[in-house]
Amino acid sequence: MQITGDMLIGAQAVRGTEATLQAINPTTGAAIGPDFHGGGEAEVERACALAEAAFDTYRNTTPEQRAAFLEAIAAGIEALGDTLVERAHLESALPIARLQGERGRTAGQLRLFATVLREGRWQQATFDPALPERTPPRPDLRMQRIAIGPVAVFGASNFPLAFSVAGGDTAAALAAGCPVVVKAHPAHLGTSELVGRVIQQAVRDAGLPEGVFSLLVGAGNAIGTALVSHPAIQAVGFTGSRAGGMALMRAANARPQPIPVYAEMSSINPVFLLPAALDARGEEIGRQLVESLVLGVGQFCTNPGLVIGIEGPALDKFRAAALGALQGKPAATMLTPGIHAAYQQGVAQLAALDGLQRIGNGVDASGANQARPEMFETTAAQFLADHRMQAEVFGPSTVLVVCRDMEEMLTVARQLEGQLTATMQLDDADHAAAQRLLPVLERKAGRVLCNGYPTGVEVAYAMVHGGPFPATSDARTTSVGATAIDRFLRPVCYQNLPQGLLPAALLK
Amino acid sequence: MQITGDMLIGAQAVRGTEATLQAINPTTGAAIGPDFHGGGEAEVERACALAEAAFDTYRNTTPEQRAAFLEAIAAGIEALGDTLVERAHLESALPIARLQGERGRTAGQLRLFATVLREGRWQQATFDPALPERTPPRPDLRMQRIAIGPVAVFGASNFPLAFSVAGGDTAAALAAGCPVVVKAHPAHLGTSELVGRVIQQAVRDAGLPEGVFSLLVGAGNAIGTALVSHPAIQAVGFTGSRAGGMALMRAANARPQPIPVYAEMSSINPVFLLPAALDARGEEIGRQLVESLVLGVGQFCTNPGLVIGIEGPALDKFRAAALGALQGKPAATMLTPGIHAAYQQGVAQLAALDGLQRIGNGVDASGANQARPEMFETTAAQFLADHRMQAEVFGPSTVLVVCRDMEEMLTVARQLEGQLTATMQLDDADHAAAQRLLPVLERKAGRVLCNGYPTGVEVAYAMVHGGPFPATSDARTTSVGATAIDRFLRPVCYQNLPQGLLPAALLK
Repeated sequence: MQITGDMLIGAQAVRGTEATLQAINPTTGAAIGPDFHGGGEAEVERACALAEAAFDTYRNTTPEQRAAFLEAIAAGIEALGDTLVERAHLESALPIARLQGERGRTAGQLRLFATVLREGRWQQATFDPALPERTPPRPDLRMQRIAIGPVAVFGASNFPLAFSVAGGDTAAALAAGCPVVVKAHPAHLGTSELVGRVIQQAVRDAGLPEGVFSLLVGAGNAIGTALVSHPAIQAVGFTGSRAGGMALMRAANARPQPIPVYAEMSSINPVFLLPAALDARGEEIGRQLVESLVLGVGQFCTNPGLVIGIEGPALDKFRAAALGALQGKPAATMLTPGIHAAYQQGVAQLAALDGLQRIGNGVDASGANQARPEMFETTAAQFLADHRMQAEVFGPSTVLVVCRDMEEMLTVARQLEGQLTATMQLDDADHAAAQRLLPVLERKAGRVLCNGYPTGVEVAYAMVHGGPFPATSDARTTSVGATAIDRFLRPVCYQNLPQGLLPAALLK
Repeated sequence: MQITGDMLIGAQAVRGTEATLQAINPTTGAAIGPDFHGGGEAEVERACALAEAAFDTYRNTTPEQRAAFLEAIAAGIEALGDTLVERAHLESALPIARLQGERGRTAGQLRLFATVLREGRWQQATFDPALPERTPPRPDLRMQRIAIGPVAVFGASNFPLAFSVAGGDTAAALAAGCPVVVKAHPAHLGTSELVGRVIQQAVRDAGLPEGVFSLLVGAGNAIGTALVSHPAIQAVGFTGSRAGGMALMRAANARPQPIPVYAEMSSINPVFLLPAALDARGEEIGRQLVESLVLGVGQFCTNPGLVIGIEGPALDKFRAAALGALQGKPAATMLTPGIHAAYQQGVAQLAALDGLQRIGNGVDASGANQARPEMFETTAAQFLADHRMQAEVFGPSTVLVVCRDMEEMLTVARQLEGQLTATMQLDDADHAAAQRLLPVLERKAGRVLCNGYPTGVEVAYAMVHGGPFPATSDARTTSVGATAIDRFLRPVCYQNLPQGLLPAALLK
């Protein structure tokens, strides 16, 4: 499949007439062809009008039709073979093996939603039969959830496949019956076009209205703001920075008709080291934590950016083991020059804070856009006094917070912002302490885990990849797992509809 | 039970030191004692701090404990006997029989949520067992929904019992495990205190932390804005005007941590008269529509403020019958002088619009704060050209929109704002037309009904009392019925928690 640098608007490939964008190889800093031609308001209007025109037909396809459509997209992505993985590798510097795994995850997500559609519970069909003998009589009431409307999706730089053009948001929205307009992430333009063309072809093959999917390209924020502001758009999925997510929330709230924004933004994923666990296996935890820290050059929403322990010999052993592991960890190439610059700046800002010391790091960078893993330390008292120590530094940097005792650990937990995850390393003897910590962590995070590390998000029915603000803009939902479909549905009640008018799911 | 004019903050009765408020008898315009002493930021702070302190204990009560607590509130409200109904009648001018019915509905809602709690599905416990043999191994994942946090509730003037202090929002939030801070509606201050004292007593009797419930009183918007802005508050329930709801949405979005607002605001509840039904029973529909229009002096969120029909002899018969019924309908006292003034102004604004004619009305007003039922007419072309004809006029006023044909009726439907309800009057021969209209109405309304009238909202499992903006601020939820509990819950995933730490609902 050829990459042309065009946008995909409905069934067409459209060459933009605004600023030109280039994909960059972060390993070399060099541009990768071809040029991508950015679009503007005319293309937003065209894509949204097509999405609106497609909506009623698409939402009224059968669940089986949509399941087959999602499976066709999954198969199409797999059929791209090495072309896709190699392009994604060039654009992201992510290793080939990781991208092959991510491709499997992307196809798996699409197939999970096909299964969800066939199971049918997503629709929440609910029946209150008429009670004609009651005073007053009760009418026949039936409820189902229907698609919310066309959805705007903004992909993430750090998952060029699994959270991008055909990623979780797109899969969930298409499953729900919502047409999708994707704004391509500028960090992986070629990858986006390849995947976009697969979806475009799947729309065509399934005989669906062309507006079910469009892919826009544009430099800067203008095209994204225009997309979120378009009256046809009824919900927004976004994964990225806090500033970016907040800008989309403002745009969505400023519309004459406000719409929901599902923005996954910022999380430092605290790891609490409870005393008995630290005592028993502090060194092992230190080494494992560093593995989680540097995984994917720290470029995960669930990267452990905060570690909280209680001072003493066990913590000293943990620290020594972690620093020992850290110093052997190579610097590695980040996703984009911009992300690398932000990492350098974030690390410098932490290093400049009073009361926070850099206690170790990995091998110094030797190539373009490489991040050196970093570890800082502070006391609980200082951490509690300076909110800037909670700022997310996207990349392989973490802060160790040393508490005097369990009470101080609880105080630190209570002062945390909302998180995607919170982790407890614990042994049996820690249960009493954990029972005090757990209610705090439940309120702070979408996922609480024990004796693991937060990186690695299973695509499953019970997964919650979400959490209180600023981790996300809407703690009531998840962006990963089967229930992500809930975000693009709304309930409708049907009262006394004659049999011939009832929706299929409500016939019985 | 004595009405003292105090606020109820946790276990205390607290006398405010800000401006004094008085309950007004709308039938006479006279004040009803005692004086109510408004609170300010100090009382907001105190109520919210208590709610925050109560939250972890309250949310971790068992579903059975909360069910019994809700039932105790229901029984306490019933035990108030005539005292409650008579005070509500004095403050609202609503008939005694209506208020007795509303009391039954209020107790019924509380008991419905007790049933919902015992059934257990509300928690959505979900299990993905560990797969240790898989590569990579899957951890044990379990999900449940937990209470979102303390909730601020703003009651509605038009349901002084069922949508006020112990109304649907309070019942749903308490069921979910959320402490509630109510801002008393100034139109029924004594009723609010009576019900508030029942809840306060039920909290005490159940041995719950006092912060589970507080009732604030205040003039103007300051106390409400302070309440929504308080960091402890995690969600807002509101029923009232569009301007009021929008102000709360702005306050909630301006917080450092934005929170969900469930505001039910404005709806004109279109009724579509399909040709065969109009032909067969236009006169009957005309008479029934007027009954729905004047019910409760038109003071329902679901009042039919818009009727759409196709020109011809059948519509002429409908119109004649409706106007005939209308002219016998007495003017009646509205809930408050403010609502009455707004009704007069709304009717005057409609009457002044070019292209809209007043075609009939009821008996002229003869007493204080009485609303005269009104009926206007316009053409579809004029309706489509002037958005002001869609403005909600809260009270017994409706607009008949005359279309040339079915195509024009569809165009009118497509141009409507979001609604709580949309109704079709139809016969078998109308099914083809209804099949074209239904997809439009599903997108516009939370409830679609056939051959009935929108007033009357059943408290049931399949009910949706919600709908797209501006009917509500969040079309993904309902404020009436069993699934209203969803609004005050959020999902949390537990990964590899040891048995001793798992929440009760996730043990198996």
